[in-house]
Amino acid sequence: MYDIVIVGGGPAGITAGIYAARKKLNALLVCKDFIGQVGQAFFVENYPGFEGISGQELMKKFKNHLKKFEIDIKEGEKVENIFKKEDGSFEIITFEKNKYYSRAVIVASGIPPKSLNAPGEKEFIGKGVSYCTTCDAPLFNGKDVAVIGGGNSALEAVIELSKYCSKIYILDNKKDFKADEIIIQKVKKIKKVQILLNSGIEEIKGKKFVESMTYKDLETGRLESLSVQGIFIQIGMVSATIFLKGLVDFNEKGEIKIDPITHQTKTEGIFAAGDITNIPSKQIIIAAGEGAKAALSAYSYIKSL
Amino acid sequence: MYDIVIVGGGPAGITAGIYAARKKLNALLVCKDFIGQVGQAFFVENYPGFEGISGQELMKKFKNHLKKFEIDIKEGEKVENIFKKEDGSFEIITFEKNKYYSRAVIVASGIPPKSLNAPGEKEFIGKGVSYCTTCDAPLFNGKDVAVIGGGNSALEAVIELSKYCSKIYILDNKKDFKADEIIIQKVKKIKKVQILLNSGIEEIKGKKFVESMTYKDLETGRLESLSVQGIFIQIGMVSATIFLKGLVDFNEKGEIKIDPITHQTKTEGIFAAGDITNIPSKQIIIAAGEGAKAALSAYSYIKSL
Repeated sequence: MYDIVIVGGGPAGITAGIYAARKKLNALLVCKDFIGQVGQAFFVENYPGFEGISGQELMKKFKNHLKKFEIDIKEGEKVENIFKKEDGSFEIITFEKNKYYSRAVIVASGIPPKSLNAPGEKEFIGKGVSYCTTCDAPLFNGKDVAVIGGGNSALEAVIELSKYCSKIYILDNKKDFKADEIIIQKVKKIKKVQILLNSGIEEIKGKKFVESMTYKDLETGRLESLSVQGIFIQIGMVSATIFLKGLVDFNEKGEIKIDPITHQTKTEGIFAAGDITNIPSKQIIIAAGEGAKAALSAYSYIKSL
Repeated sequence: MYDIVIVGGGPAGITAGIYAARKKLNALLVCKDFIGQVGQAFFVENYPGFEGISGQELMKKFKNHLKKFEIDIKEGEKVENIFKKEDGSFEIITFEKNKYYSRAVIVASGIPPKSLNAPGEKEFIGKGVSYCTTCDAPLFNGKDVAVIGGGNSALEAVIELSKYCSKIYILDNKKDFKADEIIIQKVKKIKKVQILLNSGIEEIKGKKFVESMTYKDLETGRLESLSVQGIFIQIGMVSATIFLKGLVDFNEKGEIKIDPITHQTKTEGIFAAGDITNIPSKQIIIAAGEGAKAALSAYSYIKSL
């Protein structure tokens, strides 16, 4: 029986692990891998203390830091189900058919951005393909970029990128943007923005980094090409938390609702932290801070049992 | 007229500055110095990414990171007053008689722990004298330490230190602890704890690091000495936010009440982050994450004006 099982190997899970171990909790961290979204980032410039570091390098530092402490780690496992038992403790079952038992759980398994599933997309993640303007906009200073999507987050990405980029294309496969009219009007006023509605992404191309993309005009069926160095995909997030069904509440985006101070979900003993929660900004430093908060809160909970 | 003025040069203020600058806000950071509580820490082992780093070194990295971005910095100034003007903007006046104007403010000026004002205390901060068990308990593995104070935080510090230390003295200048009875009972059960009530701290002594302390038995007036390598002072925090009077609400600890998601105080346009807020845990990684959250929230607010 563990004091705590932490699900997830990103900044939130790792920081929760560091804090749990330093509190001498008997802790287990279960994760698919220690790569996640950060490990795919080409360059991170907004994690305080590291002026510029590759996502891969930063994740390696996080992982090594965690391993300095006494904590069990099961890498390569994915949680399939969590059950709350009558005595208030938890049973955690993985797809690899292992079972773990604990008095509390911290869910920090992230919430990945939706993929276009276009050829070239995966290949160029961190090499021109990005899902986060707050993270990456400054990397594209003076460059030409495309934003894919038609909701508020896509149009806000355009506004933000306009402070850095020379030219911004925004492509959506619908006839009209679904964003709020007030944001659409703001975007239409920016001269260096070109709007391409009714456009389906065909392929992302380049050598080492993104150089261009092709799209289909869905009205005429004609293939077109754009020379761009960056492509920001803003078509929403994927909720992958079926294993928590019934134990936590989700908001309309599929994020876990938490008490933002205690990080407690609606089930006593289940805490959540990082991108997977309804805390709005998805950032490494925020996820790490929230992981620490969740661990310290879980520590108080476990002490009180 | 700045978009935003950030008050404070610790992890919360610096991270808010990094995020504000990357959002291309016209930002000013005002601070007394870039040392604060972190800069006094002997060794930091719980800021993810750095397995072990002196507080001074970490603060230097933070400061250099901030300076990479376009942001005005006024070091060596202390805010005396903030006024909200009729048009919703702010006037910030410093003790150095400078005036700054902005559309929003982030207060991240910290909340220092109360000092004993005992001879040797200041001299040995980070060299045996600590105000934070969550931060420093693991550094005292196998050592003898004293905890000063009689409230819940002091007694909880004893419980936590008992996982690491060989011997723990707890000294309080009152006849009885003011902590909750349930915690007192827990502490009394720990064999390696020695309780010294009615004891006034006289002096902290050592060469490079703390080696001993003397205290006075307030009943008999006799001076006694303890051989300890660590002294944890847990007698509360100082609220130093008079300049915010009327603009924000405080809790009973003197911490600024915020909305824990938006970091907004009760005054529109004034945000707060870090130790100074009512977020319970005072940790570097938490303060940094909260600084980013406050800056992103302030960015949304400024965009909406």
